[in-house]
Amino acid sequence: MAATRAILFDVFGTLVDWRGSVIAGLIAFGAARGVSGDWPEIADAWYRAYRPSMDRVRRGAIPWTILDDLHRDALVDIARRHGLSPLADADCAYLVGLWHRLSAWPDVVAGLIRLKRRFIIGPLSNGHLALQVNLARHNAFPWDVTFGSDIFRYYKPDPQVYLGACDLLGLVPEEVMLVAAHNDDLAAASSLGLQTGFIARPREFGNEHNDRAQAKGDWNIMADSVEDLADHLGT
Amino acid sequence: MAATRAILFDVFGTLVDWRGSVIAGLIAFGAARGVSGDWPEIADAWYRAYRPSMDRVRRGAIPWTILDDLHRDALVDIARRHGLSPLADADCAYLVGLWHRLSAWPDVVAGLIRLKRRFIIGPLSNGHLALQVNLARHNAFPWDVTFGSDIFRYYKPDPQVYLGACDLLGLVPEEVMLVAAHNDDLAAASSLGLQTGFIARPREFGNEHNDRAQAKGDWNIMADSVEDLADHLGT
Repeated sequence: MAATRAILFDVFGTLVDWRGSVIAGLIAFGAARGVSGDWPEIADAWYRAYRPSMDRVRRGAIPWTILDDLHRDALVDIARRHGLSPLADADCAYLVGLWHRLSAWPDVVAGLIRLKRRFIIGPLSNGHLALQVNLARHNAFPWDVTFGSDIFRYYKPDPQVYLGACDLLGLVPEEVMLVAAHNDDLAAASSLGLQTGFIARPREFGNEHNDRAQAKGDWNIMADSVEDLADHLGT
Repeated sequence: MAATRAILFDVFGTLVDWRGSVIAGLIAFGAARGVSGDWPEIADAWYRAYRPSMDRVRRGAIPWTILDDLHRDALVDIARRHGLSPLADADCAYLVGLWHRLSAWPDVVAGLIRLKRRFIIGPLSNGHLALQVNLARHNAFPWDVTFGSDIFRYYKPDPQVYLGACDLLGLVPEEVMLVAAHNDDLAAASSLGLQTGFIARPREFGNEHNDRAQAKGDWNIMADSVEDLADHLGT
Protein backbone atom coordinates (compact mmCIF):
# COMPACT_ATOMS: atom_id res chain seq x y z
CA MET A 1 0.00 0.00 0.00
CA ALA A 2 1.08 3.57 -0.69
CA ALA A 3 1.30 5.79 2.38
CA THR A 4 -2.25 6.67 3.38
CA ARG A 5 -2.79 10.41 3.58
CA ALA A 6 -6.57 10.74 3.81
CA ILE A 7 -9.40 8.50 4.99
CA LEU A 8 -12.87 9.20 3.61
CA PHE A 9 -15.97 7.65 5.11
CA ASP A 10 -19.26 6.52 3.78
CA VAL A 11 -21.79 7.89 6.26
CA PHE A 12 -25.26 6.26 6.14
CA GLY A 13 -24.91 2.91 7.88
CA THR A 14 -21.13 3.14 8.19
CA LEU A 15 -20.99 6.01 10.69
CA VAL A 16 -24.62 6.68 11.61
CA ASP A 17 -27.50 4.39 12.53
CA TRP A 18 -29.92 5.81 9.98
CA ARG A 19 -32.56 3.14 10.65
CA GLY A 20 -32.70 3.44 14.43
CA SER A 21 -32.63 7.24 14.21
CA VAL A 22 -35.33 7.50 11.53
CA ILE A 23 -37.63 5.06 13.34
CA ALA A 24 -37.19 6.97 16.61
CA GLY A 25 -37.96 10.22 14.81
CA LEU A 26 -41.05 8.79 13.12
CA ILE A 27 -42.36 7.37 16.42
CA ALA A 28 -41.91 10.74 18.12
CA PHE A 29 -43.60 12.48 15.19
CA GLY A 30 -46.54 10.03 15.30
CA ALA A 31 -46.95 10.49 19.04
CA ALA A 32 -46.89 14.29 18.73
CA ARG A 33 -49.43 14.22 15.87
CA GLY A 34 -51.60 11.40 17.28
CA VAL A 35 -50.91 9.36 14.13
CA SER A 36 -50.18 5.64 14.25
CA GLY A 37 -48.22 3.77 11.60
CA ASP A 38 -45.88 0.87 11.08
CA TRP A 39 -42.90 3.11 11.61
CA PRO A 40 -40.14 0.51 11.12
CA GLU A 41 -41.73 -0.57 7.84
CA ILE A 42 -42.11 3.07 6.76
CA ALA A 43 -38.42 3.68 7.56
CA ASP A 44 -37.42 0.60 5.58
CA ALA A 45 -39.63 1.61 2.64
CA TRP A 46 -38.03 5.05 2.73
CA TYR A 47 -34.61 3.44 2.58
CA ARG A 48 -35.65 1.12 -0.25
CA ALA A 49 -36.60 4.18 -2.32
CA TYR A 50 -33.13 5.68 -1.87
CA ARG A 51 -31.08 3.73 -4.39
CA PRO A 52 -33.70 3.72 -7.21
CA SER A 53 -34.23 7.46 -6.83
CA MET A 54 -30.50 8.14 -7.04
CA ASP A 55 -30.25 5.81 -9.99
CA ARG A 56 -32.74 8.01 -11.84
CA VAL A 57 -30.30 10.88 -11.40
CA ARG A 58 -27.32 8.68 -12.25
CA ARG A 59 -28.75 7.55 -15.58
CA GLY A 60 -29.95 11.04 -16.46
CA ALA A 61 -33.70 10.36 -16.23
CA ILE A 62 -33.98 13.45 -14.01
CA PRO A 63 -31.56 16.34 -13.56
CA TRP A 64 -29.23 16.65 -10.58
CA THR A 65 -31.34 16.50 -7.42
CA ILE A 66 -30.13 16.54 -3.82
CA LEU A 67 -31.07 13.83 -1.36
CA ASP A 68 -33.51 16.05 0.59
CA ASP A 69 -35.66 16.40 -2.52
CA LEU A 70 -35.45 12.69 -3.38
CA HIS A 71 -36.37 11.91 0.24
CA ARG A 72 -39.35 14.25 0.16
CA ASP A 73 -40.78 12.76 -3.03
CA ALA A 74 -40.35 9.24 -1.68
CA LEU A 75 -41.95 10.18 1.64
CA VAL A 76 -45.06 11.61 -0.01
CA ASP A 77 -45.44 8.41 -1.98
CA ILE A 78 -44.88 6.14 1.05
CA ALA A 79 -47.29 8.13 3.23
CA ARG A 80 -49.96 7.71 0.58
CA ARG A 81 -49.33 3.98 0.23
CA HIS A 82 -49.45 3.55 4.02
CA GLY A 83 -52.75 5.37 4.26
CA LEU A 84 -51.37 8.30 6.22
CA SER A 85 -53.30 11.49 5.65
CA PRO A 86 -51.51 13.89 3.30
CA LEU A 87 -48.54 15.44 5.07
CA ALA A 88 -48.39 19.19 5.41
CA ASP A 89 -45.34 20.78 3.80
CA ALA A 90 -43.94 21.66 7.23
CA ASP A 91 -44.33 18.04 8.38
CA CYS A 92 -42.59 16.80 5.23
CA ALA A 93 -39.73 19.20 5.81
CA TYR A 94 -39.51 18.14 9.44
CA LEU A 95 -39.38 14.44 8.55
CA VAL A 96 -36.88 14.93 5.71
CA GLY A 97 -34.80 16.76 8.30
CA LEU A 98 -34.57 13.57 10.37
CA TRP A 99 -31.82 12.52 7.92
CA HIS A 100 -29.82 15.56 9.09
CA ARG A 101 -30.00 14.44 12.73
CA LEU A 102 -29.01 10.77 12.55
CA SER A 103 -27.02 9.48 15.51
CA ALA A 104 -23.57 7.97 15.17
CA TRP A 105 -22.70 4.43 16.25
CA PRO A 106 -20.99 4.64 19.64
CA ASP A 107 -17.45 3.91 18.38
CA VAL A 108 -17.34 6.62 15.73
CA VAL A 109 -16.29 9.87 17.37
CA ALA A 110 -13.59 8.28 19.54
CA GLY A 111 -12.21 6.50 16.48
CA LEU A 112 -12.26 9.61 14.28
CA ILE A 113 -10.40 11.64 16.92
CA ARG A 114 -7.65 9.01 16.91
CA LEU A 115 -7.47 8.81 13.10
CA LYS A 116 -7.37 12.59 12.74
CA ARG A 117 -4.01 12.67 14.53
CA ARG A 118 -2.33 11.13 11.51
CA PHE A 119 -4.74 11.32 8.58
CA ILE A 120 -6.92 13.85 6.85
CA ILE A 121 -10.48 12.66 7.54
CA GLY A 122 -13.76 13.52 5.90
CA PRO A 123 -17.12 12.16 4.73
CA LEU A 124 -17.68 10.88 1.19
CA SER A 125 -21.39 10.26 1.14
CA ASN A 126 -24.35 10.56 -1.18
CA GLY A 127 -25.70 13.17 1.21
CA HIS A 128 -25.32 16.75 0.07
CA LEU A 129 -23.02 19.18 1.81
CA ALA A 130 -25.65 20.86 4.01
CA LEU A 131 -26.75 17.45 5.26
CA GLN A 132 -23.15 16.46 6.03
CA VAL A 133 -22.58 19.72 7.89
CA ASN A 134 -25.67 19.13 10.01
CA LEU A 135 -24.72 15.51 10.73
CA ALA A 136 -21.24 16.63 11.73
CA ARG A 137 -22.57 19.29 14.10
CA HIS A 138 -25.16 16.87 15.53
CA ASN A 139 -22.53 14.22 16.27
CA ALA A 140 -19.37 16.34 16.73
CA PHE A 141 -17.56 14.62 13.87
CA PRO A 142 -14.11 16.29 13.82
CA TRP A 143 -13.77 16.47 10.02
CA ASP A 144 -10.77 18.04 8.34
CA VAL A 145 -12.66 18.31 5.08
CA THR A 146 -16.36 18.11 4.20
CA PHE A 147 -17.45 16.64 0.91
CA GLY A 148 -21.04 16.43 -0.26
CA SER A 149 -22.52 14.86 -3.36
CA ASP A 150 -23.54 18.29 -4.66
CA ILE A 151 -19.90 19.38 -4.88
CA PHE A 152 -19.54 16.76 -7.59
CA ARG A 153 -23.15 16.57 -8.79
CA TYR A 154 -22.73 12.81 -9.07
CA TYR A 155 -23.79 9.98 -6.82
CA LYS A 156 -21.64 7.07 -5.72
CA PRO A 157 -20.76 4.64 -7.17
CA ASP A 158 -20.08 6.97 -10.12
CA PRO A 159 -16.30 7.44 -10.39
CA GLN A 160 -16.55 11.24 -10.47
CA VAL A 161 -17.25 11.25 -6.73
CA TYR A 162 -14.20 9.23 -5.65
CA LEU A 163 -11.81 10.79 -8.17
CA GLY A 164 -13.19 14.29 -7.60
CA ALA A 165 -12.49 14.02 -3.89
CA CYS A 166 -8.92 12.82 -4.50
CA ASP A 167 -8.35 15.66 -6.94
CA LEU A 168 -9.65 18.31 -4.52
CA LEU A 169 -7.37 16.86 -1.83
CA GLY A 170 -4.40 17.08 -4.21
CA LEU A 171 -3.80 13.36 -3.69
CA VAL A 172 -3.60 10.36 -6.00
CA PRO A 173 -6.23 7.65 -5.37
CA GLU A 174 -3.58 5.31 -3.92
CA GLU A 175 -3.06 7.78 -1.05
CA VAL A 176 -6.76 7.82 -0.12
CA MET A 177 -8.73 5.15 1.73
CA LEU A 178 -12.48 4.78 1.46
CA VAL A 179 -14.11 3.25 4.53
CA ALA A 180 -17.59 1.79 4.19
CA ALA A 181 -19.88 -0.90 5.49
CA HIS A 182 -20.96 -1.70 1.93
CA ASN A 183 -19.13 -3.88 -0.53
CA ASP A 184 -20.40 -2.12 -3.67
CA ASP A 185 -19.04 1.24 -2.49
CA LEU A 186 -15.64 -0.32 -1.73
CA ALA A 187 -15.59 -2.19 -5.06
CA ALA A 188 -16.07 1.09 -6.95
CA ALA A 189 -13.36 2.82 -4.92
CA SER A 190 -10.95 -0.08 -5.29
CA SER A 191 -11.43 -0.24 -9.06
CA LEU A 192 -10.26 3.39 -9.21
CA GLY A 193 -7.13 2.75 -7.15
CA LEU A 194 -8.26 3.88 -3.71
CA GLN A 195 -7.43 1.87 -0.62
CA THR A 196 -10.38 0.26 1.12
CA GLY A 197 -11.48 -0.35 4.69
CA PHE A 198 -14.54 -2.41 5.53
CA ILE A 199 -16.46 -1.86 8.75
CA ALA A 200 -19.02 -4.51 9.61
CA ARG A 201 -22.32 -3.00 10.76
CA PRO A 202 -24.51 -6.04 11.45
CA ARG A 203 -27.23 -3.88 13.02
CA GLU A 204 -27.61 -1.46 10.10
CA PHE A 205 -30.90 -3.03 9.05
CA GLY A 206 -32.09 -3.91 12.55
CA ASN A 207 -31.79 -7.25 14.28
CA GLU A 208 -32.38 -9.37 11.22
CA HIS A 209 -29.50 -11.24 9.69
CA ASN A 210 -27.65 -8.75 7.53
CA ASP A 211 -25.94 -10.46 4.67
CA ARG A 212 -24.53 -7.10 3.61
CA ALA A 213 -22.48 -6.91 6.81
CA GLN A 214 -20.11 -9.57 5.44
CA ALA A 215 -16.98 -8.44 3.62
CA LYS A 216 -17.10 -9.71 0.06
CA GLY A 217 -13.90 -8.39 -1.35
CA ASP A 218 -10.20 -8.31 -0.65
CA TRP A 219 -10.34 -5.04 1.24
CA ASN A 220 -7.14 -3.62 2.69
CA ILE A 221 -8.54 -3.47 6.21
CA MET A 222 -11.44 -5.34 7.82
CA ALA A 223 -12.72 -3.84 11.04
CA ASP A 224 -15.80 -3.94 13.19
CA SER A 225 -15.73 -0.30 14.34
CA VAL A 226 -13.93 2.98 13.66
CA GLU A 227 -11.91 2.40 16.83
CA ASP A 228 -10.90 -1.02 15.51
CA LEU A 229 -9.89 0.66 12.24
CA ALA A 230 -7.70 3.05 14.24
CA ASP A 231 -6.14 0.03 15.98
CA HIS A 232 -5.36 -1.54 12.60
CA LEU A 233 -3.75 1.70 11.42
CA GLY A 234 -1.75 2.08 14.63
CA THR A 235 -3.16 5.44 15.68
CA MET B 1 -30.58 41.58 9.41
CA ALA B 2 -31.96 38.08 8.70
CA ALA B 3 -31.00 35.46 11.27
CA THR B 4 -27.39 34.55 10.65
CA ARG B 5 -26.91 30.83 10.10
CA ALA B 6 -23.37 30.59 8.76
CA ILE B 7 -20.24 32.71 9.02
CA LEU B 8 -17.63 32.33 6.30
CA PHE B 9 -14.14 33.74 6.63
CA ASP B 10 -11.62 35.14 4.28
CA VAL B 11 -8.36 33.50 5.34
CA PHE B 12 -5.17 35.23 4.08
CA GLY B 13 -4.71 38.29 6.26
CA THR B 14 -8.06 37.91 8.01
CA LEU B 15 -7.27 34.71 9.93
CA VAL B 16 -3.60 34.03 9.23
CA ASP B 17 -0.52 36.25 9.25
CA TRP B 18 0.65 35.29 5.78
CA ARG B 19 3.41 37.93 5.70
CA GLY B 20 5.02 37.09 9.04
CA SER B 21 4.76 33.36 8.33
CA VAL B 22 6.17 33.55 4.79
CA ILE B 23 9.07 35.79 5.87
CA ALA B 24 9.90 33.42 8.74
CA GLY B 25 9.80 30.47 6.34
CA LEU B 26 12.01 32.22 3.80
CA ILE B 27 14.56 33.20 6.47
CA ALA B 28 14.72 29.60 7.70
CA PHE B 29 15.08 28.36 4.14
CA GLY B 30 17.85 30.85 3.41
CA ALA B 31 19.72 29.88 6.58
CA ALA B 32 19.42 26.17 5.77
CA ARG B 33 20.66 26.71 2.20
CA GLY B 34 23.28 29.37 3.00
CA VAL B 35 21.45 31.83 0.72
CA SER B 36 20.94 35.46 1.62
CA GLY B 37 18.14 37.61 0.27
CA ASP B 38 15.87 40.50 1.13
CA TRP B 39 13.25 38.10 2.47
CA PRO B 40 10.62 40.68 3.49
CA GLU B 41 10.82 42.24 0.04
CA ILE B 42 10.63 38.82 -1.60
CA ALA B 43 7.54 37.98 0.50
CA ASP B 44 5.93 41.28 -0.47
CA ALA B 45 6.75 40.76 -4.15
CA TRP B 46 5.23 37.30 -3.93
CA TYR B 47 2.07 38.81 -2.48
CA ARG B 48 1.96 41.54 -5.13
CA ALA B 49 1.93 38.83 -7.81
CA TYR B 50 -1.13 37.17 -6.23
CA ARG B 51 -3.94 39.40 -7.45
CA PRO B 52 -2.65 39.88 -11.03
CA SER B 53 -2.11 36.13 -11.43
CA MET B 54 -5.64 35.38 -10.23
CA ASP B 55 -6.98 38.08 -12.49
CA ARG B 56 -5.48 36.25 -15.48
CA VAL B 57 -7.63 33.28 -14.49
CA ARG B 58 -10.64 35.49 -13.79
CA ARG B 59 -10.62 37.13 -17.21
CA GLY B 60 -9.95 33.80 -18.97
CA ALA B 61 -6.42 34.58 -20.15
CA ILE B 62 -5.35 31.22 -18.68
CA PRO B 63 -7.50 28.22 -17.72
CA TRP B 64 -8.46 27.42 -14.15
CA THR B 65 -5.27 27.19 -12.09
CA ILE B 66 -4.95 26.60 -8.33
CA LEU B 67 -3.03 28.97 -6.11
CA ASP B 68 -0.09 26.57 -5.62
CA ASP B 69 0.64 26.73 -9.33
CA LEU B 70 0.20 30.52 -9.50
CA HIS B 71 2.51 30.81 -6.48
CA ARG B 72 5.15 28.59 -8.07
CA ASP B 73 5.24 30.55 -11.32
CA ALA B 74 5.47 33.82 -9.42
CA LEU B 75 8.23 32.50 -7.19
CA VAL B 76 10.39 31.40 -10.12
CA ASP B 77 10.05 34.87 -11.59
CA ILE B 78 10.80 36.67 -8.32
CA ALA B 79 13.82 34.46 -7.58
CA ARG B 80 15.24 35.34 -10.99
CA ARG B 81 14.63 39.05 -10.52
CA HIS B 82 16.25 38.95 -7.08
CA GLY B 83 19.34 37.22 -8.45
CA LEU B 84 18.77 34.01 -6.52
CA SER B 85 20.22 30.97 -8.24
CA PRO B 86 17.57 28.89 -9.99
CA LEU B 87 15.48 27.02 -7.44
CA ALA B 88 15.35 23.23 -7.59
CA ASP B 89 11.88 21.79 -8.06
CA ALA B 90 11.92 20.41 -4.52
CA ASP B 91 12.86 23.84 -3.13
CA CYS B 92 10.06 25.45 -5.11
CA ALA B 93 7.57 22.90 -3.79
CA TYR B 94 8.85 23.44 -0.26
CA LEU B 95 8.49 27.22 -0.49
CA VAL B 96 5.06 27.07 -2.15
CA GLY B 97 4.12 24.83 0.78
CA LEU B 98 4.83 27.70 3.18
CA TRP B 99 1.38 28.99 2.22
CA HIS B 100 -0.10 25.76 3.62
CA ARG B 101 1.55 26.35 7.02
CA LEU B 102 0.68 29.98 7.76
CA SER B 103 0.07 30.78 11.42
CA ALA B 104 -3.18 32.24 12.70
CA TRP B 105 -3.44 35.54 14.49
CA PRO B 106 -3.68 34.81 18.23
CA ASP B 107 -7.40 35.61 18.60
CA VAL B 108 -8.63 33.30 15.86
CA VAL B 109 -9.03 29.81 17.32
CA ALA B 110 -10.61 31.00 20.57
CA GLY B 111 -13.04 33.15 18.59
CA LEU B 112 -13.95 30.39 16.16
CA ILE B 113 -14.68 27.96 18.99
CA ARG B 114 -17.10 30.48 20.44
CA LEU B 115 -18.80 31.21 17.10
CA LYS B 116 -19.14 27.50 16.28
CA ARG B 117 -21.50 27.09 19.23
CA ARG B 118 -24.19 28.98 17.38
CA PHE B 119 -23.16 29.29 13.73
CA ILE B 120 -21.92 27.08 10.93
CA ILE B 121 -18.36 28.26 10.32
CA GLY B 122 -16.01 27.75 7.41
CA PRO B 123 -13.35 29.35 5.21
CA LEU B 124 -14.21 31.14 1.96
CA SER B 125 -10.82 31.85 0.51
CA ASN B 126 -9.04 31.97 -2.80
CA GLY B 127 -6.92 29.10 -1.54
CA HIS B 128 -7.83 25.71 -2.93
CA LEU B 129 -9.32 22.99 -0.77
CA ALA B 130 -6.09 21.09 -0.06
CA LEU B 131 -4.48 24.33 1.13
CA GLN B 132 -7.45 25.09 3.39
CA VAL B 133 -7.33 21.58 4.85
CA ASN B 134 -3.63 21.97 5.62
CA LEU B 135 -4.12 25.42 7.16
CA ALA B 136 -6.94 24.07 9.31
CA ARG B 137 -4.85 21.14 10.54
CA HIS B 138 -1.84 23.40 11.13
CA ASN B 139 -3.88 25.86 13.22
CA ALA B 140 -6.64 23.60 14.62
CA PHE B 141 -9.40 25.65 12.97
CA PRO B 142 -12.62 23.90 14.06
CA TRP B 143 -14.45 24.25 10.73
CA ASP B 144 -17.92 22.84 10.18
CA VAL B 145 -17.49 23.09 6.44
CA THR B 146 -14.44 23.52 4.19
CA PHE B 147 -14.71 25.48 0.98
CA GLY B 148 -11.87 25.94 -1.47
CA SER B 149 -11.70 27.96 -4.67
CA ASP B 150 -11.37 24.79 -6.73
CA ILE B 151 -14.83 23.64 -5.62
CA PHE B 152 -16.17 26.61 -7.58
CA ARG B 153 -13.32 27.06 -10.07
CA TYR B 154 -13.70 30.81 -9.63
CA TYR B 155 -11.77 33.33 -7.62
CA LYS B 156 -13.21 36.00 -5.36
CA PRO B 157 -14.53 38.57 -5.98
CA ASP B 158 -16.39 36.67 -8.73
CA PRO B 159 -19.97 36.12 -7.53
CA GLN B 160 -19.90 32.36 -8.24
CA VAL B 161 -17.77 31.86 -5.12
CA TYR B 162 -20.07 33.62 -2.64
CA LEU B 163 -23.31 32.36 -4.20
CA GLY B 164 -21.92 28.87 -4.72
CA ALA B 165 -21.09 28.59 -1.02
CA CYS B 166 -24.57 29.76 0.00
CA ASP B 167 -26.14 27.27 -2.38
CA LEU B 168 -24.07 24.36 -1.08
CA LEU B 169 -25.05 25.33 2.46
CA GLY B 170 -28.72 25.37 1.46
CA LEU B 171 -28.95 28.97 2.70
CA VAL B 172 -29.96 32.25 1.10
CA PRO B 173 -27.23 34.92 1.01
CA GLU B 174 -29.02 36.94 3.68
CA GLU B 175 -28.42 34.09 6.17
CA VAL B 176 -24.66 34.03 5.53
CA MET B 177 -22.05 36.48 6.80
CA LEU B 178 -18.71 36.99 5.12
CA VAL B 179 -15.95 38.12 7.46
CA ALA B 180 -12.85 39.70 5.98
CA ALA B 181 -10.14 42.25 6.63
CA HIS B 182 -10.55 43.58 3.09
CA ASN B 183 -13.15 46.04 1.87
CA ASP B 184 -13.28 44.77 -1.72
CA ASP B 185 -14.14 41.25 -0.57
CA LEU B 186 -16.91 42.58 1.67
CA ALA B 187 -18.23 44.88 -1.05
CA ALA B 188 -18.63 41.93 -3.42
CA ALA B 189 -20.36 39.84 -0.74
CA SER B 190 -22.63 42.70 0.28
CA SER B 191 -23.69 43.40 -3.30
CA LEU B 192 -24.92 39.79 -3.49
CA GLY B 193 -26.96 40.05 -0.30
CA LEU B 194 -24.60 38.48 2.23
CA GLN B 195 -24.09 40.01 5.64
CA THR B 196 -20.65 41.44 6.28
CA GLY B 197 -18.20 41.56 9.16
CA PHE B 198 -15.00 43.59 9.00
CA ILE B 199 -11.98 42.64 11.07
CA ALA B 200 -9.20 45.23 11.20
CA ARG B 201 -5.77 43.68 10.74
CA PRO B 202 -3.40 46.65 10.91
CA ARG B 203 -0.34 44.37 10.95
CA GLU B 204 -1.21 42.40 7.83
CA PHE B 205 1.43 44.21 5.80
CA GLY B 206 3.92 44.61 8.63
CA ASN B 207 4.46 47.66 10.77
CA GLU B 208 3.84 50.23 8.07
CA HIS B 209 0.64 52.20 8.07
CA ASN B 210 -1.98 49.96 6.50
CA ASP B 211 -4.64 52.01 4.84
CA ARG B 212 -6.46 48.80 3.96
CA ALA B 213 -7.08 48.08 7.65
CA GLN B 214 -9.72 50.85 7.71
CA ALA B 215 -13.34 49.90 7.15
CA LYS B 216 -14.60 51.66 4.02
CA GLY B 217 -18.16 50.46 3.85
CA ASP B 218 -21.27 50.18 5.92
CA TRP B 219 -20.47 46.67 7.13
CA ASN B 220 -22.87 44.96 9.51
CA ILE B 221 -20.19 44.37 12.13
CA MET B 222 -16.85 46.07 12.71
CA ALA B 223 -14.43 44.16 14.92
CA ASP B 224 -10.74 44.06 15.66
CA SER B 225 -10.46 40.30 16.23
CA VAL B 226 -12.49 37.09 15.86
CA GLU B 227 -13.06 37.16 19.61
CA ASP B 228 -14.40 40.70 19.30
CA LEU B 229 -16.68 39.46 16.50
CA ALA B 230 -17.98 36.75 18.84
CA ASP B 231 -18.61 39.45 21.47
CA HIS B 232 -20.63 41.45 18.94
CA LEU B 233 -22.66 38.37 18.05
CA GLY B 234 -23.24 37.48 21.70
CA THR B 235 -21.60 34.04 21.62
